[in-house]
Amino acid sequence: MRIRYGVVGTGALGGYYGGRLAQAGREVHFLLRSDYGFVRENGLRVDSVKGGFHLPAVNAYATVREMPRCDVVLVCIKTTGNAALPGLLRPLLHPGAVVLLLQNGLGVEEDLAAALPGVAVAGGLAFVCAQKKGPGHIAHLDYGDLDIGVPGATGADGGAASGVLGQVAEDLRAAGVPAKLAPDLAFARWRKLVWNVPFNGLTVVMGATTDRLVAHEATRELVRDVMLEVVGGANAVGVPLKESLAQKMIDNTLQMTPYAPSMKLDCDHRRPMEIEYIYDRPVAAAAHAGFDMPRTAMLARQLRFVQDCYGR
Amino acid sequence: MRIRYGVVGTGALGGYYGGRLAQAGREVHFLLRSDYGFVRENGLRVDSVKGGFHLPAVNAYATVREMPRCDVVLVCIKTTGNAALPGLLRPLLHPGAVVLLLQNGLGVEEDLAAALPGVAVAGGLAFVCAQKKGPGHIAHLDYGDLDIGVPGATGADGGAASGVLGQVAEDLRAAGVPAKLAPDLAFARWRKLVWNVPFNGLTVVMGATTDRLVAHEATRELVRDVMLEVVGGANAVGVPLKESLAQKMIDNTLQMTPYAPSMKLDCDHRRPMEIEYIYDRPVAAAAHAGFDMPRTAMLARQLRFVQDCYGR
Repeated sequence: MRIRYGVVGTGALGGYYGGRLAQAGREVHFLLRSDYGFVRENGLRVDSVKGGFHLPAVNAYATVREMPRCDVVLVCIKTTGNAALPGLLRPLLHPGAVVLLLQNGLGVEEDLAAALPGVAVAGGLAFVCAQKKGPGHIAHLDYGDLDIGVPGATGADGGAASGVLGQVAEDLRAAGVPAKLAPDLAFARWRKLVWNVPFNGLTVVMGATTDRLVAHEATRELVRDVMLEVVGGANAVGVPLKESLAQKMIDNTLQMTPYAPSMKLDCDHRRPMEIEYIYDRPVAAAAHAGFDMPRTAMLARQLRFVQDCYGR
Repeated sequence: MRIRYGVVGTGALGGYYGGRLAQAGREVHFLLRSDYGFVRENGLRVDSVKGGFHLPAVNAYATVREMPRCDVVLVCIKTTGNAALPGLLRPLLHPGAVVLLLQNGLGVEEDLAAALPGVAVAGGLAFVCAQKKGPGHIAHLDYGDLDIGVPGATGADGGAASGVLGQVAEDLRAAGVPAKLAPDLAFARWRKLVWNVPFNGLTVVMGATTDRLVAHEATRELVRDVMLEVVGGANAVGVPLKESLAQKMIDNTLQMTPYAPSMKLDCDHRRPMEIEYIYDRPVAAAAHAGFDMPRTAMLARQLRFVQDCYGR
């Protein structure tokens, strides 16, 4: 089977992964907004630590109505735009299509599946440092792994997606992306939250990059406490993360160059932050299982205040 | 008995309360640092909502060695300078003297009593808006109440102080200060912490005055959670504060004009913040009683990071 791909949101993530698939000869249709005219004229350029490339002509669209129906749609927008997703996706999907949400946080598949009954919804977690440099110009700085999988007992029709996902992972690997099927998407999502919850929030609230947070004892210990709280939340909902993960992630972060996570970049550019899916949903899921996450909830509130004070 | 007063630290607090006592004809000896020369020459000026005054000649000293021994010493420095207190006080105290610590937080009396065995140590909580405007120039903006008392079962020799404290309260009231004996100093200290812990910390970490914190739902709810946590800590150590105090204090703060608590001013002026006695000690006391204060501990860590990043 030859998959026709759609990419909704051609920023760093969609431009990089969609661009890799197109470079490898897959059929890829890109939905763009402000970059539409530029990419239509000039194509897509990717600088990459794994070897850059330029695609002079790509299938670029300004609206979903002009796009053909696709087999697999990679959703690469921020979760802060998810309210618009059902309307964007409906014209793009033929029966049997799979939506693959490459987004952070918890509960995105469930929400979309509830809004689009009968649609197969899968999820993916990107472990990649990439950023948009300009119109149609993506820089891939480090890493690149993509874990994809179907949600568990979530109500989403993940089962129908799992066959197609194997093919997607193969296509990605053939395009040079280390993609693999996650046997347990919930595990992968919670695992990534263990890093994202402390570092996204604290880089914003403390106004500091990751290196400074782990260099100072007080914030390093706070990062550890928040990580252990997320591990506790995961365990409460039945996801068997280990507490030793916290020290491993701190050690890894100590080795990293100074880094501003996506939420810090959103804050610096006065964009909405992904507070709901990265903070509120894990807190609510854990609370539903009887586990309190006071530090995570506190970060959420601090972040809301920062976000609503933009421009003051 | 006519009390001879000493004032250690002639800033907003020491200048205001010591000045009131001197204005009312009490014998008061002021220890100053940078303002010594100016006050020696020009005296002390207090602007006050309750009526200002100028004391053209006050007993001003640059070092404790020049000061006479006193009956009651009002300690009006920030707790961040408490390591120097035993050395400062020893030459000032005759047998039977009482030290009255007008400081925020928990555990100040116990620490000083341990460092100065046999000395009677009492404590006081000032509910006053006052600030230093310039050398020897204090502005009293609002309130002014002073609750004084002896620590309970703390090991400090509070009993010896209680007789003298009645006279101190009388002297203060005669000087126009609404002073009263607190029947339970621990209760008074924890009660003040219910306001100080959320607002001192959050005005610093969020970079906002009190009005903005209570105007936004997210931070107002966070303030409430932190207040309830402090009430829980108090209850755990046997101090019977009520949860309804949180809403009362939030309502009061909603009525206040935009306010920067002392810790915010310390931060803005790049001075050390009173993290130990306002945050660490309550957390430790509650933990000793088996009660966890994760939000208060988190604020302490955020504050340490802010403080150590001064000037970066």
